[in-house]
Amino acid sequence: MPKLTSENQIIQFLQRRYPAKSALLKKGIGDDAAVMRFHQREEYWSVTTDMLMEGVDFRREWTTPRQLGRKSIAVNLSDLAAMGARPRFYTVSLAIPPDISKNWISEFYEGLAAPESSKGAQLIGGDLSRTEHGIAISITALGESLNGKVLYRSGGRAGDLLYVTGTLGRSAAGLRLLQTGCVNPRSRSQREALQSHQMPEPRCEAGIWLAQCGYVDCMMDLSDGLSMDLPRLCAASGVGAGNGVGAEIRLADLPIFSESRQWGCDPVECALHGGEEYELLFAVKSAKRHLFEKNYPSSFPKVTQIGKMTGAAGKIWITGPGKNRRKLPEQGYDHFRKSQSCSEKSARERRCPG
Amino acid sequence: MPKLTSENQIIQFLQRRYPAKSALLKKGIGDDAAVMRFHQREEYWSVTTDMLMEGVDFRREWTTPRQLGRKSIAVNLSDLAAMGARPRFYTVSLAIPPDISKNWISEFYEGLAAPESSKGAQLIGGDLSRTEHGIAISITALGESLNGKVLYRSGGRAGDLLYVTGTLGRSAAGLRLLQTGCVNPRSRSQREALQSHQMPEPRCEAGIWLAQCGYVDCMMDLSDGLSMDLPRLCAASGVGAGNGVGAEIRLADLPIFSESRQWGCDPVECALHGGEEYELLFAVKSAKRHLFEKNYPSSFPKVTQIGKMTGAAGKIWITGPGKNRRKLPEQGYDHFRKSQSCSEKSARERRCPG
Repeated sequence: MPKLTSENQIIQFLQRRYPAKSALLKKGIGDDAAVMRFHQREEYWSVTTDMLMEGVDFRREWTTPRQLGRKSIAVNLSDLAAMGARPRFYTVSLAIPPDISKNWISEFYEGLAAPESSKGAQLIGGDLSRTEHGIAISITALGESLNGKVLYRSGGRAGDLLYVTGTLGRSAAGLRLLQTGCVNPRSRSQREALQSHQMPEPRCEAGIWLAQCGYVDCMMDLSDGLSMDLPRLCAASGVGAGNGVGAEIRLADLPIFSESRQWGCDPVECALHGGEEYELLFAVKSAKRHLFEKNYPSSFPKVTQIGKMTGAAGKIWITGPGKNRRKLPEQGYDHFRKSQSCSEKSARERRCPG
Repeated sequence: MPKLTSENQIIQFLQRRYPAKSALLKKGIGDDAAVMRFHQREEYWSVTTDMLMEGVDFRREWTTPRQLGRKSIAVNLSDLAAMGARPRFYTVSLAIPPDISKNWISEFYEGLAAPESSKGAQLIGGDLSRTEHGIAISITALGESLNGKVLYRSGGRAGDLLYVTGTLGRSAAGLRLLQTGCVNPRSRSQREALQSHQMPEPRCEAGIWLAQCGYVDCMMDLSDGLSMDLPRLCAASGVGAGNGVGAEIRLADLPIFSESRQWGCDPVECALHGGEEYELLFAVKSAKRHLFEKNYPSSFPKVTQIGKMTGAAGKIWITGPGKNRRKLPEQGYDHFRKSQSCSEKSARERRCPG
């Protein structure tokens, strides 16, 4: 058995050990969601599961139950968005310690099931359990893809242009505010950063459009930071693609959240390595670039081209500042790695800048 | 908001708050699984989720990782069996504390995915997380029902005959052995009881047959004890059924595990109130009784008629010993009730009988 010292390694081990082998299953372990087909030739269903553990993925003192409910469903819907699937159903497992009030439970579910949270998906079941320690939440969401159009992490090719939705590093900057405990409620940029962290907005409509438009080769959502997730996109796209793919991104093109400098963050570091962003990362066929930029709906979250895929298998380069070119170190979030970067979810430092 | 002092009340609250309202959804919260239909008129899919928390639902010192994996999937497949659905897919969320070895993780998954555990269902994804305290496991399983034939908890009518598969009270007797710490590995009945508790066998094939045969009105699996689950079956069947239904069971007819007397258990108490049995409880139309008993495959787990449904809404009676007739108290397992019966999962007493 291989050494399992990171989340990637554990998932790869499971993927090899339990390969997809059912005619009903189009994609098994290893993407943002599993994809099943139900005897209808052109209709696919995606299934995804995400777990949130108190003390690791959230702290009760940093979130209201309503915010936590909203974030719990958002991280799942973001995986469905990354497949281009429309949210339909979800189940919720919730384990609570004895000191949780009934009102807390009710507020949590209200946060989950509010229309702005669940985006049309319906709560269809779940389980309730006690725990002796922190709260544990596990949600499974199911989404539907029409016309057989699903986007996987695989499928990217050398020359494809890499885009992201929204802004990068805003959630990490919000986390930093919570860690330092120095929140100025009158600062609009601080409120934005906190909201990104506490109530991320899954890119459901954009994901569905990107899967249906025909311009995109592969897609994933950014949950562990660009520097962790971009190599995953390249690795998945490389499988079975001859010589594999790598990527080059340009620092100057990153849609950073520069306001976070005000509270001592490095916006570029946050954009590269900050986790829990829940933006979409996708690769557009180079020949379709103009059509894509022309037709992408202006009412959707902005998209930014940050670089391209290359033929250098597994090599992830970043250019900038200036002509400086270096390998992008993987410093995003990994539940199973000991030293963590700025996206460390359980950091306890309380230090106010300035 | 109502008082939420029991699992039943919390689930009823959620059921009312989040009713089924999608054309794709045939059954939402409140049964053993949710049921979706996927545009094929006669094909239904069931979805179920169960959570197991260390210290509440299991103790690491009482189980091997392989046994725990097997039990984790079994409790989910038992819910699918209760719908008559064939197991197809499942996802696993696993949160582990820092002291868990890589070997433990691998053994856990082997226990889950072994053919004798997963019964043809395929692992299609999940999530991995750290926890600061005990292990948390949440599994979501999907099963398929052909010909539109699904059995719900609702549908039972006065006069229906109540049956159970297998033996009742064996798992509770096995738990008692673990609690007292007095296991005799040479005792066959002790080994049987331990196996029932540590590696319950979901009644998948029997459940599918019972759903397809046309003799059965309603079905559920026994996870919290007959005295907790039978009222749930009657309550669900009563909804929309005029005056509602109740039940009468006969003590002398219960398929008890009498060997447990040897280690100080009361086999009748265990059969009535012992949780984690994972046998099926179902109601056969009285006019179909002979056809049912004639055609039920002899290779399947034995079935025993334990009583019948009555027209006395919500009244659950037990007759015996002799002609003594009394109301059956609800003493099975409830995660959210303070005093618990013999099925108490977290009891710490260590007392050897005899």
